[in-house]
Amino acid sequence: MPRLEDLDTPVATVDLDAVERNIARLQRYCDEHGFALRPHIKTHKLPVLAHKQVDAGAVGICCQKLGEAEVMAAAGLTDILIPYPIVGQSKVERLAELARTVRVSVGADSDTVAKALSATLGRAGVTVDFLVDCETGFARTGVQTPREAAELARLVDSLPGLRFAGLMTYPTTADAVARLREMREECERTGLEVGVVSGGGTPTAFRTHEFGEVTELRVGTYVYGDRACVGLGVMTLEDCALHVRATVISRPTRDRAIIDAGSKALASDAVPWTGEAGYGFIREFPEAAISALSEEHGHVDISACRRPPEIGETVTVLPNHACACVNMHDEVAVHRGGDVVGAWPVAARGRIR
Amino acid sequence: MPRLEDLDTPVATVDLDAVERNIARLQRYCDEHGFALRPHIKTHKLPVLAHKQVDAGAVGICCQKLGEAEVMAAAGLTDILIPYPIVGQSKVERLAELARTVRVSVGADSDTVAKALSATLGRAGVTVDFLVDCETGFARTGVQTPREAAELARLVDSLPGLRFAGLMTYPTTADAVARLREMREECERTGLEVGVVSGGGTPTAFRTHEFGEVTELRVGTYVYGDRACVGLGVMTLEDCALHVRATVISRPTRDRAIIDAGSKALASDAVPWTGEAGYGFIREFPEAAISALSEEHGHVDISACRRPPEIGETVTVLPNHACACVNMHDEVAVHRGGDVVGAWPVAARGRIR
Repeated sequence: MPRLEDLDTPVATVDLDAVERNIARLQRYCDEHGFALRPHIKTHKLPVLAHKQVDAGAVGICCQKLGEAEVMAAAGLTDILIPYPIVGQSKVERLAELARTVRVSVGADSDTVAKALSATLGRAGVTVDFLVDCETGFARTGVQTPREAAELARLVDSLPGLRFAGLMTYPTTADAVARLREMREECERTGLEVGVVSGGGTPTAFRTHEFGEVTELRVGTYVYGDRACVGLGVMTLEDCALHVRATVISRPTRDRAIIDAGSKALASDAVPWTGEAGYGFIREFPEAAISALSEEHGHVDISACRRPPEIGETVTVLPNHACACVNMHDEVAVHRGGDVVGAWPVAARGRIR
Repeated sequence: MPRLEDLDTPVATVDLDAVERNIARLQRYCDEHGFALRPHIKTHKLPVLAHKQVDAGAVGICCQKLGEAEVMAAAGLTDILIPYPIVGQSKVERLAELARTVRVSVGADSDTVAKALSATLGRAGVTVDFLVDCETGFARTGVQTPREAAELARLVDSLPGLRFAGLMTYPTTADAVARLREMREECERTGLEVGVVSGGGTPTAFRTHEFGEVTELRVGTYVYGDRACVGLGVMTLEDCALHVRATVISRPTRDRAIIDAGSKALASDAVPWTGEAGYGFIREFPEAAISALSEEHGHVDISACRRPPEIGETVTVLPNHACACVNMHDEVAVHRGGDVVGAWPVAARGRIR
């Protein structure tokens, strides 16, 4: 059985033991507090891990794009939320087709989208659950006020092909939940039943019970962890399951090493809000800093390293952002305790439509 | 014949007329001034465009990774430079195999790499041209001094399986070329012939004749252009051949639109050195600013737009960095004047090893 050290680099590696611990821990937390868990597959993009999450007790999965949902449905996943506005006739027709074979729900924030979905889904004779997407501080999508939330909910409730199922927001924070509560109460005042209140985000996942309000949790990163999660103090280095193994290919100066993992292997996402600079954490050289990325080069400042890494030496990089990193890789090498037990194609990678 | 407007989004599009103009213009410049042109395929990653570049007069191509070179060799390209240290026994064996079928040259900056290459290539009975990689200000790879350059050149000259072919650097600037000249002169003082002096980079490509010294130009981005090139004033908007078409999926406020192209479609590379903020330029809404990216969402500030884009409207985004953007896409839609004439798989995408 090959060892991690034997793999050609750069290569994304997944520690299956750590993944299973992460899945079990969050599921146990959700079970204890009575939340539904709906893992977001955008982090791993792997049907086999989605199945593990559902087998552990998740109510279903969450996919950001229709193309990801199609991959997961084809792999036997049967309950999929797409919390993302589906716009354009060809996509709505694909949604109708998907809804014929699996349970699908969607989230969106406008009457434009709701009416377009309804026109096609109603004609197709299928019904899809609809969550009203509520903005609660993140400044991305979502209705802005309780009144807008209730108006859209009432519209959805009246449209063929759609069923008003509840509200969603991202990310869950104490402030966000306070705003979400007002939106739910306004919907209920108009006589609507708000079945699901869906929140999300790994950073606050284990605080969901403090906030109240949320009935279903959409979280992705918890399955792998990353440098952002460690920087925020919500996961430990030992929890982190995803790494990129890289090789030192140049040592032009005493203070600089170049590794063969650049933005095409690590992704160029910075995580300044965690207080961490740079583009990843090198497990074997904690004093080193990945100070810049070219596409194929990681520029490493090794001035603080007592023993500098040599050309040909391999290192293990914890990426800044697991989801963005995974999307760069056609496959991941899967291991238990360093024994490589498989190479899994990242089936939903690059499904941008 | 479908039009660009008919394509499902997000989708990367390539204007073939603009590509052909860009290829012809730089080739003409190089021919006029007597430089060899060796286009870098990392920008397009498409064998068909590599062939167009060679047919126009390029001496060969340049690939950053061995895996890219293998794709190009399999597609009939016959002269390939890999200006990147090839480290690790399995890679060196792949290089030996590649060198049996096509003309391959490499660049590297250490005796460690040169000796490892020589051991396997020499045994395999193949000879590969070796360029000494010289650092001239970019702080990435490369030998640091004329003395180091000459020492490595002499070593390479003595090793079986390698032939010292010349020097390379990146990027070419006036300062860089001055340092490169000292390195060349030091090599020549020791009696070595410096056949090739290879420079690179689209921003200074059309100034190469001012610098002197460079005999061969490695450039990638010129084929497509991008927002960085426009920001630096070295290409015009009309020259730009690569775009990402996207759809407005949410208009939560008067000042904000969300498009369905985020970091997974545009890449998250910032280009602050051009004086441009944000993550792309929307051709139809020049007053708009792509102020942030989530993986699947582009956050667009439309506060300055006289007519704001509506949900369902499609827009054309010029990405910040063509090479990073292309690497996110499994295929590109190819058009002439808006008529879609093909969908090309990005054959060398994701070849990180």
